[in-house]
Amino acid sequence: MGIHSVLLLSSTLIALSRASTVDDATKYSKENVKDIDADLLKLAAIPSISSLPEHARDIVAASEWLIEKLKAAGLENVKLLPTKAQPSVYAEWLRATGAPTVLIYGHYDVQPVDPLELWDTPPFEPKVDRKDKMLFNGRGVSDDKGGLLQPIHAVEAYLKTSKQLPVNVKFLLEGQEEIGSPNLAELLQEHKDLLRADIALSADGGQISPKHSGIALGLRGAVAFEVEAQTVDVDLHSGMKGGSVQNPIHALAQFIDNLHAPNGSVKVEGFYRGVQERTAEDIADAAAYPFDEEAEMKSLGALGPHGEDGYTTLERRWLRPTLEVVGIWGGFTGTGIKTIVPSKATAKISCRLVPDQDPVEVLEALRAHTKSHAPPQTRLTFRKLPFHAQPYLMPRDTVANRAATKVLKEHFEGPFFYREGGSIPALALMKEHLGIWCTSFGFGLSTDNLHSPNERYMVSMWDKGREAWIKLLHEMSVLGSGQEEQAEPDMSTVLKDEL
Amino acid sequence: MGIHSVLLLSSTLIALSRASTVDDATKYSKENVKDIDADLLKLAAIPSISSLPEHARDIVAASEWLIEKLKAAGLENVKLLPTKAQPSVYAEWLRATGAPTVLIYGHYDVQPVDPLELWDTPPFEPKVDRKDKMLFNGRGVSDDKGGLLQPIHAVEAYLKTSKQLPVNVKFLLEGQEEIGSPNLAELLQEHKDLLRADIALSADGGQISPKHSGIALGLRGAVAFEVEAQTVDVDLHSGMKGGSVQNPIHALAQFIDNLHAPNGSVKVEGFYRGVQERTAEDIADAAAYPFDEEAEMKSLGALGPHGEDGYTTLERRWLRPTLEVVGIWGGFTGTGIKTIVPSKATAKISCRLVPDQDPVEVLEALRAHTKSHAPPQTRLTFRKLPFHAQPYLMPRDTVANRAATKVLKEHFEGPFFYREGGSIPALALMKEHLGIWCTSFGFGLSTDNLHSPNERYMVSMWDKGREAWIKLLHEMSVLGSGQEEQAEPDMSTVLKDEL
Repeated sequence: MGIHSVLLLSSTLIALSRASTVDDATKYSKENVKDIDADLLKLAAIPSISSLPEHARDIVAASEWLIEKLKAAGLENVKLLPTKAQPSVYAEWLRATGAPTVLIYGHYDVQPVDPLELWDTPPFEPKVDRKDKMLFNGRGVSDDKGGLLQPIHAVEAYLKTSKQLPVNVKFLLEGQEEIGSPNLAELLQEHKDLLRADIALSADGGQISPKHSGIALGLRGAVAFEVEAQTVDVDLHSGMKGGSVQNPIHALAQFIDNLHAPNGSVKVEGFYRGVQERTAEDIADAAAYPFDEEAEMKSLGALGPHGEDGYTTLERRWLRPTLEVVGIWGGFTGTGIKTIVPSKATAKISCRLVPDQDPVEVLEALRAHTKSHAPPQTRLTFRKLPFHAQPYLMPRDTVANRAATKVLKEHFEGPFFYREGGSIPALALMKEHLGIWCTSFGFGLSTDNLHSPNERYMVSMWDKGREAWIKLLHEMSVLGSGQEEQAEPDMSTVLKDEL
Repeated sequence: MGIHSVLLLSSTLIALSRASTVDDATKYSKENVKDIDADLLKLAAIPSISSLPEHARDIVAASEWLIEKLKAAGLENVKLLPTKAQPSVYAEWLRATGAPTVLIYGHYDVQPVDPLELWDTPPFEPKVDRKDKMLFNGRGVSDDKGGLLQPIHAVEAYLKTSKQLPVNVKFLLEGQEEIGSPNLAELLQEHKDLLRADIALSADGGQISPKHSGIALGLRGAVAFEVEAQTVDVDLHSGMKGGSVQNPIHALAQFIDNLHAPNGSVKVEGFYRGVQERTAEDIADAAAYPFDEEAEMKSLGALGPHGEDGYTTLERRWLRPTLEVVGIWGGFTGTGIKTIVPSKATAKISCRLVPDQDPVEVLEALRAHTKSHAPPQTRLTFRKLPFHAQPYLMPRDTVANRAATKVLKEHFEGPFFYREGGSIPALALMKEHLGIWCTSFGFGLSTDNLHSPNERYMVSMWDKGREAWIKLLHEMSVLGSGQEEQAEPDMSTVLKDEL
């Protein structure tokens, strides 16, 4: 037997022994599903809303809960990584000598819940129904408390059965994703050595449908700002002064109405600088993606699609930058009527960006536009908001994408390659500061009412996701030889992306 | 001595005796100024905000306080006149046999106080400073609690000194003026006989400046409505769906921006139907009126005047109808950012109307406009708000205007004839249901921050107003021969208005 045969045999044995650890872990996770469900209900009951200062203590409570959970799962060196604001939670298990190191990302903060009256159940009294509806309900059950618990439970299942993991694992669970991770760059820079890994996986992702899986190659970037229009010092009597001074709501409406051209494009000089034109591959991805536009518009309650002329709905979401007013207020908003000319009105605006727009440049273009487009007799004030994300676009062919492809094929049709319309600053930041691409591996669905009332998570996706994570960690040890450069080229069946 | 001489002598004696009662009443009111001030502080401390349901009990408290005050002042038949909502307070003194009967109108409800943070002192902890600033501070001290207490204190001063009044008096103090007196028409109709009078005087008026007096011949009418724009059933993730469905704030901004033409006129079909063209007399009134536009714009903090092209600032306020968005809200309005495409946005809009616009017709025009001007993929809902006032324009030459002219000349320059930009539904309603014109006789100033934070009332106007009311009641008995038709034509030195 030559040395090659010995190596081959040894590698096969390792693969076999690993396969049995997968089965053991999967069995364990099935047997302990009650405790596993209870974990999600406990974590989702903590109202860790990062955007509202009054919930600062809940952010702390959620991070503390995670620390205890990670310790109980068998992870080591579990600790808080503080920032100027919401801390991240770190944990590791580094005893898989010679195996690659995987950094797993997730976030434990959640979106606000207003309008509260539209929730069918209290958002922070989460429930699970495994009998009829097969749903979890509550803020964060999908985004991303359900998501981040899946790899924790996968790791726990390995450590409670085989006492070891197929790969080295580091967790980075942050508490400010929903406000745009303002302190994450600093944190990554500070803990560069601690967080060093071969590959990153994000547990903050989703699948296309209960039937179709996907791998998101890109995410839109984001910036956000506020514009305040002021015309007089204090609210005036609308009878005494009405019709003779500028009304700041009229002025702000005019400003907003002029932000888009009639063809739906953003009418701000310099806004589109750097935007990549769609490629034949982009068009093919969008065409292949399973998507029933009419059914979706119906489910959203929309009268029809609306956006930039010349692009399909998926292209508008994946490939085009947007500008959306996310909130507006001014004057009297109580019951009945107050007869005033208000003194000011304010709009919160967020933009989604695509490669290769530069968020800093776009924000400057918006600031300049605001400065030069004040309506008559109006003072406009521009205020940057702390939401900033670089657009992200990764190669199709990476070890993690190949491992994910293999695992997803076992559970779903696909995977289809696509782009996310949303922004997760962490992905671009991990590339920038740690030098690694990050594959999203999550099981939320677009029908989960993310960021909306009645957020939910399908029990089937919650269970499948955990099993998929167990398999993925195993596949990473088989396919992942540590560094991207060492990936075997003949295993790639997908086309190379332009990056 | 012929019969004419006897009559002349007797009439002179009556006038002399009356003059001495004026002096006694004036003296009494000066000596009791501490108690008089205390009354305003007590009444203004009750937060009787008619537009906010949570203040319903304060409306009751204010009406009860007034009942006790009117009784203490010596008025008779003091009682509540209930309506479906806020009640009116009625009181009378009808022992001046042969003298005319004067109906005195005022309102005890006040505007909301938000934004609370702009108040220098708590709005319902009113204060008076008779040493330095010579001001009352607090919500309602000018509009209209200060105003309605002046005739009550004038009546009290007569009844405590001469034990009689020069005229018969009825008070009608309502509790829903600030929400547009929705139930006043019904109340006037129901109590037509009780409220019958020869002349009406409104204590809800103002003067031009501490130096210049005026008599308002007209008031603008008003209607109000809400427009809600909805594009999707619930708030959506601005990343996942942003750019591919209509945003209701964009849609509402477009709707609002299209409500005015570039020349400042209201772009709603039928809106201007019936609007009287300005007359030479209107132009002369506006030109004669003491008004420093530049100083006023500066005091308001406005960059300059703004409105309908082709009209001066005073003409815009007196003679032209307006459309103002008084409040707007939609999407996320908390601290920071929430990355959504909101599902809906709402604007509250009020219009001021001029003779001979018909509020019902104008509202129908606005409803039709809303129906036919929905932006793409947007559902617009139109909701009438309970604020409805007929525009009002009275003749220049009436007994009350002549009496008011005489009294005002003793204290101020003027009076100048002008129009109010605001709306007091009561005036048109009293003409409609009781058949009498109403002269406004109040002492608030446009610098009193009516409907704004830091409402105030000048102590000098508070004191002068009370003295003027004492004199006015006397003059009404000298000049008023009961019915308008009996007015002596040779006393009129002012031009007849077109009505």
